[in-house]
Amino acid sequence: MTLPVEPVDVEGLRTRVHKALDDLLARQADVLESASEDLVPLMDAVSDLLRGGKRLRAAFCYWGWRGAGGDDCDGIVSVAAALELFQAAALIHDDVMDDSDTRRGRPAVHRRFASLHRGNGWLGPPEDFGLAGAILAGDLCLSWCDELYAGADLPPDRLAAGRAVFDRMRTELMCGQYLDMLEQVLASTSVERARLVILFKSAKYSVQQPLLLGGTLAGAPAGLLSTYDVYGRALGEAFQLRDDVLGVFGDPTATGKPAGDDLREGKRTVLVAVTLERCSPASASMLRRDLGDRHLDAEGVARLREVIAGSGALDVVESMISEQSERAISALEPVSEPARSVLERLVVAATSRTQ
Amino acid sequence: MTLPVEPVDVEGLRTRVHKALDDLLARQADVLESASEDLVPLMDAVSDLLRGGKRLRAAFCYWGWRGAGGDDCDGIVSVAAALELFQAAALIHDDVMDDSDTRRGRPAVHRRFASLHRGNGWLGPPEDFGLAGAILAGDLCLSWCDELYAGADLPPDRLAAGRAVFDRMRTELMCGQYLDMLEQVLASTSVERARLVILFKSAKYSVQQPLLLGGTLAGAPAGLLSTYDVYGRALGEAFQLRDDVLGVFGDPTATGKPAGDDLREGKRTVLVAVTLERCSPASASMLRRDLGDRHLDAEGVARLREVIAGSGALDVVESMISEQSERAISALEPVSEPARSVLERLVVAATSRTQ
Repeated sequence: MTLPVEPVDVEGLRTRVHKALDDLLARQADVLESASEDLVPLMDAVSDLLRGGKRLRAAFCYWGWRGAGGDDCDGIVSVAAALELFQAAALIHDDVMDDSDTRRGRPAVHRRFASLHRGNGWLGPPEDFGLAGAILAGDLCLSWCDELYAGADLPPDRLAAGRAVFDRMRTELMCGQYLDMLEQVLASTSVERARLVILFKSAKYSVQQPLLLGGTLAGAPAGLLSTYDVYGRALGEAFQLRDDVLGVFGDPTATGKPAGDDLREGKRTVLVAVTLERCSPASASMLRRDLGDRHLDAEGVARLREVIAGSGALDVVESMISEQSERAISALEPVSEPARSVLERLVVAATSRTQ
Repeated sequence: MTLPVEPVDVEGLRTRVHKALDDLLARQADVLESASEDLVPLMDAVSDLLRGGKRLRAAFCYWGWRGAGGDDCDGIVSVAAALELFQAAALIHDDVMDDSDTRRGRPAVHRRFASLHRGNGWLGPPEDFGLAGAILAGDLCLSWCDELYAGADLPPDRLAAGRAVFDRMRTELMCGQYLDMLEQVLASTSVERARLVILFKSAKYSVQQPLLLGGTLAGAPAGLLSTYDVYGRALGEAFQLRDDVLGVFGDPTATGKPAGDDLREGKRTVLVAVTLERCSPASASMLRRDLGDRHLDAEGVARLREVIAGSGALDVVESMISEQSERAISALEPVSEPARSVLERLVVAATSRTQ
């Protein structure tokens, strides 16, 4: 793969997605403020989280639309922004379930509400308040996501057609998260099961479904949708594998998450599963013992990194990423310009990223 | 008020709402089963919860439509069923936030997933798994609620008009739940604040907004919508005040919740606020001390019941319920038959209920 690792030229799109989100938040702030000023922290938690993010899902949705001959318009930007709200909901609830401390370099939303409680010396355990605040903030994002989708300025019959993808995406993500959780409590070491979780929790949701949504909204023919399907599955898997590598080897200043966070959370990733297949019995025991240890220190993380890299699993996963990236790029042949070039560059952006 | 306390004749509607929900669940089961059989417990948790419920919100939505001249049709039944899914989501997440044990006479959804974990001897704390399962089950209900609404067989312009009510209802309920939680951690004793929470968490959401949604979908004129508004606010408050009384004095076999559950959860209801205004300083200290005590036994509950009834607060709240019920019935004058009679009977059903 010789494409340059350059930022995808979606700066215009990013700005427009931000604006769509800002407009929605301003409307919601009116609703909340008319109820009670006590709701300001709820609004702020959502607004702050939405400021960050790579906006990759928005880009896939927009370029799926353009690639199918859809003209640039504000309606598709609203749908792209709706996906960012859905992602925010998923992150807020996911962080509660994983009991994560940070997200996008800031305290996770449930930690934020716990701090608010603690700072005010309110009654009861701050963690309970944090949990409740985060559940409600996530619920608001789910509802607002839907509001943006339904209110998008696109022909009603196109929005209705896109529903099939939009609805399935939401259901499948939640199912993927359930399966992910199940893998952790089953302490599964199966590469096959780990790839199934990736498929539902990430591959479909991060790339394939946003792209298919854009394409379906634009009325793409079946042939193009199946091109999107192949590209989306391949790149989606590569995207998640990159996430898994970053979750162990990533730089905290870039990822916004503590180093080795996935190890402490006991994530059953493909990277871990491949390591367990390849490393010595002694290393496997150590990995099994330390995985999911909330108090694992920097030395412990470094030790596990050595096991993972030393087993060759890191190389195996990097090869998987390259292979799937190439498959994604090859699939793009039937897509017309300029969408094709942007989707090619999005492969690089999604897999060579450091955050 | 001399109306007989008879079951509202919405049996036909109940059956049709059940059918709309069953059809949706069958479609979703196909999606889940095609992903993994491990998802069966997630599906079952939602299905079982949806079997129960008084379907009052569905009835208000349907009769709001009929009262505005809407013809009986399946489309409005789908929207009514969507409200039941939203209610299920709210209950699942609310039970997590309140750490409730039971709902509709069965274990709360998070308890159910914790038991599944425990029964299988899975890794980690069962409570963490329970929490995650319940968050995801609630998220699925939110998404499916939206799916039912958007897919309802009604003219697109009517569905688009109803969105304003549907969207605001969802946002305001979540805000109401946040304010409710805040009252608990602030240990607020203000009757005024307790009534604000009722307004957003319950009055608007349980009666007024479903009714306005039905009316708006049918294209009701402004005059009728303002009639619905008055009826809805008054009955909504009475409805919640009845809930508060049942939360302290209700029969567990009817409510499906342990006796005095609201006392253990430390709910800052109007009933509690009025008691604190009226009772002796010694009783007030006891009430303040015991309210929110998770381990309060039957004797403790009986003691608090005596304080609440003895202070006259129970009578005050019963008078408020009667007063608001009468206000609701008076407001109905401009509504045409048969909707008017049904809405009158719904006042009795919503306020004289034992569950």
